[in-house]
Amino acid sequence: MNKVILLNNRPEGRPQLSDFKFIQEEKPQVQDGEILLATKYVSVDPYLRGRMRDQKSYIPPFQLNEPISSGIVAEVVDSKNDQYKKGDHLSGMLAWKEFQTSTGQGLNKVDPTKAPLSAYLGVLGLTGLTAYFGLMDIGKPKEGETIVVSGAAGAVGTIVGQIGKINGCRVIGIAGTDEKVAMLKEKFGYDEAINYNTTTNMYKAIRAAAPDGVDVYFDNVGGTISDAVMANIARNARVVVCGAISVYNETEIPMGPRISTTLIKQSVLMQGFTLGNYAARMGEGIGQLAKWLQNGQLTHAETIVEGFDQIPQAFIDLFDGKNKGKMVVKV
Amino acid sequence: MNKVILLNNRPEGRPQLSDFKFIQEEKPQVQDGEILLATKYVSVDPYLRGRMRDQKSYIPPFQLNEPISSGIVAEVVDSKNDQYKKGDHLSGMLAWKEFQTSTGQGLNKVDPTKAPLSAYLGVLGLTGLTAYFGLMDIGKPKEGETIVVSGAAGAVGTIVGQIGKINGCRVIGIAGTDEKVAMLKEKFGYDEAINYNTTTNMYKAIRAAAPDGVDVYFDNVGGTISDAVMANIARNARVVVCGAISVYNETEIPMGPRISTTLIKQSVLMQGFTLGNYAARMGEGIGQLAKWLQNGQLTHAETIVEGFDQIPQAFIDLFDGKNKGKMVVKV
Repeated sequence: MNKVILLNNRPEGRPQLSDFKFIQEEKPQVQDGEILLATKYVSVDPYLRGRMRDQKSYIPPFQLNEPISSGIVAEVVDSKNDQYKKGDHLSGMLAWKEFQTSTGQGLNKVDPTKAPLSAYLGVLGLTGLTAYFGLMDIGKPKEGETIVVSGAAGAVGTIVGQIGKINGCRVIGIAGTDEKVAMLKEKFGYDEAINYNTTTNMYKAIRAAAPDGVDVYFDNVGGTISDAVMANIARNARVVVCGAISVYNETEIPMGPRISTTLIKQSVLMQGFTLGNYAARMGEGIGQLAKWLQNGQLTHAETIVEGFDQIPQAFIDLFDGKNKGKMVVKV
Repeated sequence: MNKVILLNNRPEGRPQLSDFKFIQEEKPQVQDGEILLATKYVSVDPYLRGRMRDQKSYIPPFQLNEPISSGIVAEVVDSKNDQYKKGDHLSGMLAWKEFQTSTGQGLNKVDPTKAPLSAYLGVLGLTGLTAYFGLMDIGKPKEGETIVVSGAAGAVGTIVGQIGKINGCRVIGIAGTDEKVAMLKEKFGYDEAINYNTTTNMYKAIRAAAPDGVDVYFDNVGGTISDAVMANIARNARVVVCGAISVYNETEIPMGPRISTTLIKQSVLMQGFTLGNYAARMGEGIGQLAKWLQNGQLTHAETIVEGFDQIPQAFIDLFDGKNKGKMVVKV
């Protein structure tokens, strides 16, 4: 038999376990031209929350009573396709199923001898590419500038900070526990880190850490943390709008201070993006990230949860910041 | 004697006549190297409201009991400087005085035979340049795209729309009276115009006018009008954040819907700017605007108020939208 996870309800507010449904189906048989894939590692990501809403976005919403999908590394366990053989590993967008068939279209071969399989969902996958293109292409960091990263201890944030350091910048992280703050400074080379849960005045804390203002703001969270950063924004700053996890579970339109006058006075650029914008440049990004990883300039953090059944809970835990670095489920 | 207008109080909310003070001083005498200037046309602009606040910005605030300054065209009436002779006309940032001396530094000669003197404060001045660089450099309009302009009947907006048409775009204006709406369509070539004062659902009105979404939003006003435009923003849109007159008189921090998720989902770029960013490219801008003006592709609108004493009231009237096109005071 074959376990599958369906979207049971569209979450209202914070997702709950009851929004997901486990079913058993027959293990599929490969047809000519197909391969049978066994799921090995499953990526859970904040952006999936958006796909659980029934609204138009850059990717279509998940359908009720249909399997959820996300980034997955799987192993070929049967093949009727000449391009793939048993034991190959592939990465791409796949369904939350223990086993599934595929023609291989849209999937990429990954090499477990070059990096751990889970890295292809993180630093060498969508996460690393998001950090790379967001910071380099929109943030355009210049040596000596100050970068602030919100959600700094998350999957993308841990990589952004390191790329900032590689580019000769001063890097300040914002995270939610003292343990994460320590990790950012000790493991990922952040110059400063601020615990927003224990800091009463974030505006002043950021001003103290970045007295000349924030030249690049890489925003993973939105909300009041971003308000405090924007109040410290430097002239000609770039704001990389990557994520807004603080508002993904809101059921009403979130309100906040209007930013037009700040953007004008300081000549600030804000750019929202999704990785799809860089589809033609994935090879460049992976190549650069792999090089940094190999020469030791880039390290990565993972929170690995074990067991197919734990996928929904791991996803929910993202909204409580229970992950350090990339949250991955090992099947 | 020589009339001078000082900042009497920093306005609270909407500026009032009592925030300004008229004084009489001795008419100045020219020293060696100086010229005596008689003020001819005075530009009043929404951004001056920002300089009346005591806060850091891209230009220093006006000081209490000191003269206010803005864009002015003046005539040389006495000269002890070889570079200037009586009858020359100069344009630049000057004080709200009937007469003042200058070395000429920072001022540009203007030619009254090539365009009316007031045009050098409008279409061939800071206003035209703001429209030109904002739309061309940030908005990057492509043929067939849809541009929405807020404050469309104002000084900058009337020019932005025409440059949009020159670039082959569909142009939609937002303004506050039926008369302005008619003017936008009849005089400035706007394809559509919406009266926000008589439209109950701006979101739907914009959607009807721009069913494929808004590719470029040139924003002069901010506030709820911008909220309705942003709810119709197209994928890969550019938002030119030029002004926010709707909030300039606010005494508390204005609140509105957070836009991070919109920026991400639609991969939107927002860029605030001031003309100072383009200081090195003024010649290019003036040259292009003059060419369009000469070949009839660009027309301009002015609201000319007569009398030095009317300068404060003309400035206040901007916030009630009493101007069509550029508001100028003829002395």
